[in-house]
Amino acid sequence: MATINDNYLKLKAGYLFPEIARRVKTFAEANPDAKIIKLGIGDVTEPLPEACRTAMIKAIEDMGDRGTFKGYGPEQGYEWLREKIATHDFQARNCDVDASEIFVSDGAKCDTGNILDIFGKNNKIAVTDPVYPVYVDTNVMAGHTGEVNDKGEYEGLVYLPINAENNFIAEIPSQKVDIIYLCFPNNPTGATATKDYLKNWVDYAKANGSIIFFDAAYEAFITDSSLPHSIYEIEGARDCAIEFRSFSKNAGFTGTRCALTVVPKTLTAKASDGSDVELWKLWNRRQSTKFNGVSYIVQRGAEAVYSEAGKAQVQALISFYLENAQIICDKLKGAGFEVYGGVNAPYIWLKTPHNLSSWDFFDKLLQTANVVGTPGSGFGAAGEGYFRISAFNSRENVLEAMKRITSQFHL
Amino acid sequence: MATINDNYLKLKAGYLFPEIARRVKTFAEANPDAKIIKLGIGDVTEPLPEACRTAMIKAIEDMGDRGTFKGYGPEQGYEWLREKIATHDFQARNCDVDASEIFVSDGAKCDTGNILDIFGKNNKIAVTDPVYPVYVDTNVMAGHTGEVNDKGEYEGLVYLPINAENNFIAEIPSQKVDIIYLCFPNNPTGATATKDYLKNWVDYAKANGSIIFFDAAYEAFITDSSLPHSIYEIEGARDCAIEFRSFSKNAGFTGTRCALTVVPKTLTAKASDGSDVELWKLWNRRQSTKFNGVSYIVQRGAEAVYSEAGKAQVQALISFYLENAQIICDKLKGAGFEVYGGVNAPYIWLKTPHNLSSWDFFDKLLQTANVVGTPGSGFGAAGEGYFRISAFNSRENVLEAMKRITSQFHL
Repeated sequence: MATINDNYLKLKAGYLFPEIARRVKTFAEANPDAKIIKLGIGDVTEPLPEACRTAMIKAIEDMGDRGTFKGYGPEQGYEWLREKIATHDFQARNCDVDASEIFVSDGAKCDTGNILDIFGKNNKIAVTDPVYPVYVDTNVMAGHTGEVNDKGEYEGLVYLPINAENNFIAEIPSQKVDIIYLCFPNNPTGATATKDYLKNWVDYAKANGSIIFFDAAYEAFITDSSLPHSIYEIEGARDCAIEFRSFSKNAGFTGTRCALTVVPKTLTAKASDGSDVELWKLWNRRQSTKFNGVSYIVQRGAEAVYSEAGKAQVQALISFYLENAQIICDKLKGAGFEVYGGVNAPYIWLKTPHNLSSWDFFDKLLQTANVVGTPGSGFGAAGEGYFRISAFNSRENVLEAMKRITSQFHL
Repeated sequence: MATINDNYLKLKAGYLFPEIARRVKTFAEANPDAKIIKLGIGDVTEPLPEACRTAMIKAIEDMGDRGTFKGYGPEQGYEWLREKIATHDFQARNCDVDASEIFVSDGAKCDTGNILDIFGKNNKIAVTDPVYPVYVDTNVMAGHTGEVNDKGEYEGLVYLPINAENNFIAEIPSQKVDIIYLCFPNNPTGATATKDYLKNWVDYAKANGSIIFFDAAYEAFITDSSLPHSIYEIEGARDCAIEFRSFSKNAGFTGTRCALTVVPKTLTAKASDGSDVELWKLWNRRQSTKFNGVSYIVQRGAEAVYSEAGKAQVQALISFYLENAQIICDKLKGAGFEVYGGVNAPYIWLKTPHNLSSWDFFDKLLQTANVVGTPGSGFGAAGEGYFRISAFNSRENVLEAMKRITSQFHL
């Protein structure tokens, strides 16, 4: 008899965003005239940069000629793309990251989930609470947790609460953990990390032989020049951190699909016999065996992000979304909401009014303002009573959504 | 201390194709004037069909307009693509497969590896020998095996030998296994399966509660109209089989990346409490959590495979490669080689001459004829003494390769 991975049965009902989609669909069917504005899922809305489109059309033309046709590419990504990433994203910020340490993939969601493949079953795992649900769910699937409790917390995981009291910055735990997920600028709270703060984590990780999974998917939104974009801006991080990045939120690749993961060749973890094993070798083996590289066409599009035109077009996109974020913050604050984030990040994190639960506020916002956001409790127990608004939409929709919200809520 | 997944340390040195690439690179550097012809890795060489390119360029234009821009798509693939797949690939052959049972992905290699995520640790796994190495390696990584022996066999796996004596068709095992990998038309041997033969497997699987992983990546090469293209042409298969397909080998998408997996909603496996759990739900949860869908642009390219123009262009590609296969078979047989496959498949499987080992013949072929093939032993212990030649190349290169081989080998 074939048997299933029982760990899947521990997972709570639905992944957050499908549940939102379900409620929105139900509401839309019952209210066909409602003009729903979605500021929920962190999905970009503006056109793909012209430089990327031009490069992809050229790549398609390459595919039409036997002499320039591309079949299987390197599982790790093409050298020309990896070199550009290394130069522009890392070496330009004095990070010691080589092209050979970069693995191009089809998504940071995939990579942050798949990375667990190369780690052992008995690592003590820490996540912030609230947190991007994929970190938690993939650990549940991998059997790294026990059952879930009524608050949505899984036995065995270490939850590091982030809230208004600690400025949404997790304290370094007193207990020893083996793997820590950090995401800055933060999804969902929009909080940022200083170099000093990250240095404390690097020191902790090095002292304890821990690995930091650093999710920098939103680094392009950093406007404060003192803030680090990469964990590798911190001395010692090459010995304790893996970094995840994406073209989704800077160049608008959510539907085009390209991302990357950095695994420094200096990074090791322990085998059960106590020996140190290079994680680069394991990840390289994993990707060579279970992945076949990103579409040549898409990689050419990603490469164009680093052209002069591409850089300017990406910067214009980022500025546009950050202006949206500014408008959201201003309008909501003006209406009396308690608001966080939205300065170096495309997410605004707010306290729900009248002590509403996150899902009650979700339903109320949908019903009265026809605006979709994301319930904070969907990101973890400590997100209860909070709510995420995304700045990814047209200016017109953002203004209209704020008009509707501020006319419905006077706090 | 963070620990690694020790199972990775059981893996033999390199995945087969990187090792081939290494030897070819060494030879090429030492012999810069050698015109090496690669008939090794199963990678297509001819231009992408015009219908696919046109559709992808249109999709890129969609991405340039706010009104038609696509962000995150469904993790399972767009409905319009899944409907076309269901209609043309399955329902047209009287297979009871619905669009909702199709999961579009970026590669069959990924899917055949990732599918293990949803299964338990104690399933008894059967593979043919020789076999596509990814099936074995991903089971090793998942901890489903013990150590490897000198012949390259992993403890705990059930190997079903395929060889000239059984026409490269595995016998149904007498022992009970829980998961069986079948690939028809077969990689690497080019063997095919009749409906009667597959019916025996379906009956076996249903009697034992086993699941068949059916890899149909090469179904487009079937020319014999009596042969099944899908396991779902066999009565009862919906209750015991998952099927993997790809656009790589029919439409030349090896560098463009699109594939699909069918998980029937009627398919179940056992939880540890003995209850039956729908595998569709688990795979849907896996894909929703650890995957973010295939590039919109690529999915539009895949959709065009089902247009009238696309169908004709794909058929022309298939015919071209099959003519190559015919030439290879004829020439090698003429030179006295013992040759299999190559009729309903793009692979020719040959017995190495003079009882050379597979790798010795690889080296000899590379050195004397400057032709690259794939050592049979790379596909498993029982592949020793065999060799795979791929029909994926230009006519000119195939003719030249055959000229060189037949001038070097007189058997």
